Amino acid sequence: MSCVTPAEYTRVIKVEDVIQFCMRCLEKVGVNKDHCGALAEVLVAGDHRGHYSHGINRLEMYVMDVEKGVCSKEGEPVIEKETVSTALVNGRNLLGPVVGNFCMKLAIEKAKKTGVAWITAYGSNHFGIAGWYSLMASNAGLLGMAFTNTSPLVYPTRSKQRAMGTNPLTVAAPSSKAGDEFVLDMATSAVALGKIEMCRRRGIPIPHGWGADKNGKSTTDPAEAAGEGALFPLGGEEQNSGYKGFGLGMMVEIFCGIMAGGAYGTNVRRWMATDRPANLGQAFVAIDPNAFASGFGDRMSDYVNSMRNLSRVDEKQPVVIPGDPEREHIEECRKMGGIRYPPVLIDSMDKLADRLHVQRMPVLKELKP
Amino acid sequence: MSCVTPAEYTRVIKVEDVIQFCMRCLEKVGVNKDHCGALAEVLVAGDHRGHYSHGINRLEMYVMDVEKGVCSKEGEPVIEKETVSTALVNGRNLLGPVVGNFCMKLAIEKAKKTGVAWITAYGSNHFGIAGWYSLMASNAGLLGMAFTNTSPLVYPTRSKQRAMGTNPLTVAAPSSKAGDEFVLDMATSAVALGKIEMCRRRGIPIPHGWGADKNGKSTTDPAEAAGEGALFPLGGEEQNSGYKGFGLGMMVEIFCGIMAGGAYGTNVRRWMATDRPANLGQAFVAIDPNAFASGFGDRMSDYVNSMRNLSRVDEKQPVVIPGDPEREHIEECRKMGGIRYPPVLIDSMDKLADRLHVQRMPVLKELKP
Repeated sequence: MSCVTPAEYTRVIKVEDVIQFCMRCLEKVGVNKDHCGALAEVLVAGDHRGHYSHGINRLEMYVMDVEKGVCSKEGEPVIEKETVSTALVNGRNLLGPVVGNFCMKLAIEKAKKTGVAWITAYGSNHFGIAGWYSLMASNAGLLGMAFTNTSPLVYPTRSKQRAMGTNPLTVAAPSSKAGDEFVLDMATSAVALGKIEMCRRRGIPIPHGWGADKNGKSTTDPAEAAGEGALFPLGGEEQNSGYKGFGLGMMVEIFCGIMAGGAYGTNVRRWMATDRPANLGQAFVAIDPNAFASGFGDRMSDYVNSMRNLSRVDEKQPVVIPGDPEREHIEECRKMGGIRYPPVLIDSMDKLADRLHVQRMPVLKELKP
Repeated sequence: MSCVTPAEYTRVIKVEDVIQFCMRCLEKVGVNKDHCGALAEVLVAGDHRGHYSHGINRLEMYVMDVEKGVCSKEGEPVIEKETVSTALVNGRNLLGPVVGNFCMKLAIEKAKKTGVAWITAYGSNHFGIAGWYSLMASNAGLLGMAFTNTSPLVYPTRSKQRAMGTNPLTVAAPSSKAGDEFVLDMATSAVALGKIEMCRRRGIPIPHGWGADKNGKSTTDPAEAAGEGALFPLGGEEQNSGYKGFGLGMMVEIFCGIMAGGAYGTNVRRWMATDRPANLGQAFVAIDPNAFASGFGDRMSDYVNSMRNLSRVDEKQPVVIPGDPEREHIEECRKMGGIRYPPVLIDSMDKLADRLHVQRMPVLKELKP
């Protein structure tokens, strides 16, 4: 929930320049221009919202999927089956955001007619931050949800086998007052792998409940958890209700791979593998609040503010609602004139630029660490 | 996730006799006969599935709501607004299961036509185990979900104010093989209050992450957490991602009180209060898997069994999927010829019977503790 950008994130780059850089790289490997734009926007939204684990640090992974030919460079998703309120979409192995945008647009269109729409897709790829898609719905005045299965990185409760992805879910709800939108965007694992890797790099132990060693036992050693071990589901160990996080992760898989007929469970391609198409399953839901009790937006605003104004455990730590940390990060970027990145990440982007023979990202400014 | 009935649950009563007893009590205070049956079935299903916190131990609460006139004894819920795939239902302050059954039947009917249905209700009351309603859908071959807001018992992350209910969610999915249905039925709090109360009665400490004292600090003293303190959301403290459980609890509230226009957040009636109608908000969703990729049931069976067969941390502890502990409990009841209860609970039921001048529950047998 932290919204503080680490001090070592000293290199500031304009949002538009990051988008253009992503597009240059993707166009260079032959991706359809619209598709480049779709992926670039979602990746940069990840960084802009402070979800750096799903931003341009993943650009090279997408580039490699395209270069190795395991992901399609052009074409459009296809509706294979539909009703007034549902659709099954074949993502045709296109970039995740191409599939995701297609599905959520379709969901919004249908929900505006019938009040609710549920779309599932197979043959998809990593789609960036899940919140991008739920926000599409809330920006259109609807509630939105999105789900995706992912490569196995989590131990199901009682198992010592990596058999479940971090399987994220997102729910966004509009409000009558700007800044009061609810945007939950979370992995169903206790934490993201990136959080454990950050502790490893800094040489600090992780709390019990984040991850386990290769024998499935809770560990405070980030190298064990991120190495041969795995993440715990949300909740952590069984006695702390980790089985609920396991159940939520399974729920996401049922909505995705199982309902859409894509890869599922342990069959999902290994993390970072490029030996075969990912065939991810995803789900997109839109709900029109106007189909229910009138005055939804006002109640939302009242509700989120009643939560923000609760008495605090620590006076210095206000209660924040899902969406607040991201809004705070976006505001920080605005003041800064761009997004702050760690130099080590920009160096690797420069290397990617050089390898692809495209122009590097222009740096707006360098902060003092 | 434990499926072991405590040793002190020594009094066995036939399922049908428990149902009949609930009906006698409710009819005696003037509840419409069909409504008595609806509530009796859900309460006994709670005990039968091993969710004793939502079984006949709550019967007297419902009886008192009726006696004090804060809950209606007869009438039917009314559809106030609808589309082919949605409805807003006024529960008219009827017993929760009357409202819940009405809404889920409607959801199933609509989803069979359009693939998905989303129903919300206001003016409702406690509806027993949420899983009852998702199971209605999965028994009809559909996926089902249900949500309800509840009285504030949880601290939102960073707050020391009880401002959120245990806001449960349930998801059930059918399978092509009996016994392989997925039935997730969970509070979005770390644990149920009953779990902390059980530790208090036994004089054992609770793990960190279950609850906090009156200052919002994590405690291992069950008396503090169940007394002036409160429960943590799923995840526990902030560093263990308790804010995700907080977000999930808010999501449930948005689907319930906010969308349906019932009481919400801190406005939900205090736990066990009978000073005014509860006006709970609830949501019911049904999804037809046939609207998506064919072969859903076979994939479900394959998926849940692949999870069950994963390598174990402890050879004696098999991986169980949501729904397995409940199936095991139902099987135990079958072998026993009835449901096992603690004598102290049956004694209080006898007192209730005597007060209402109805026949006590016949005890099938008494086990040696």
